[in-house]
Amino acid sequence: MKDPSNPVCRTISTLLSRIGDKWTVLVVGTLGEGSKRFNELRREIPSVSQRMLTLTLRNLERDGLVNRTVTPSIPPRVDYELTELGHSLLEPITALSQWALGNIEAIHGAQARFDAEQDAKAEAA
Amino acid sequence: MKDPSNPVCRTISTLLSRIGDKWTVLVVGTLGEGSKRFNELRREIPSVSQRMLTLTLRNLERDGLVNRTVTPSIPPRVDYELTELGHSLLEPITALSQWALGNIEAIHGAQARFDAEQDAKAEAA
Repeated sequence: MKDPSNPVCRTISTLLSRIGDKWTVLVVGTLGEGSKRFNELRREIPSVSQRMLTLTLRNLERDGLVNRTVTPSIPPRVDYELTELGHSLLEPITALSQWALGNIEAIHGAQARFDAEQDAKAEAA
Repeated sequence: MKDPSNPVCRTISTLLSRIGDKWTVLVVGTLGEGSKRFNELRREIPSVSQRMLTLTLRNLERDGLVNRTVTPSIPPRVDYELTELGHSLLEPITALSQWALGNIEAIHGAQARFDAEQDAKAEAA
């Protein structure tokens, strides 16, 4: 884990970058409620663009975290759902989201203090 | 959490992108062992560039997750250590790393199957 030049560590780093990505977290979290169609996901995550949602879902499908099912109706219907592997990711992702949610104020306070110190240093210089 | 256009959700999304970042995970993990000097961190994470390590530490300091202590010796000595808030992040970050480590093979397998299917589709087209 320590050295990302090692192939296993590089894979973990890549995975962490991917699963820590905000759209991935939001899509996996939303699919945690159950299977959704593409347009349902767009409605439930209004700030995601069509392009980013397509890309995020494709990466999740490639990683084996999401199943994509096409029903050949008119128009065709496309459903997305978490695989078993995808479901197993819900727990650590939820823990990380809970941590972020529970510590937003402490982090905002730290950022404000840091920025004020930097401003004071800049004025003194 | 659902809609990142909401300011709280945007903050969580930003935090998740930051704390899911591979260098952040590696630096927080390494500082979990105890206080380190800049050059110790570089040695223990050989693939990080000086610039990225500096940037990552600065963001962690700004977020209140890392303390930076300068000892005015010759040459000056700079130590980094996790704050209490930084320590509290170790648990969810470790859970996510463990998940990634435990599921690398399943994900590699899924990626290989996905890529083979795409190749087969491309050839058939």
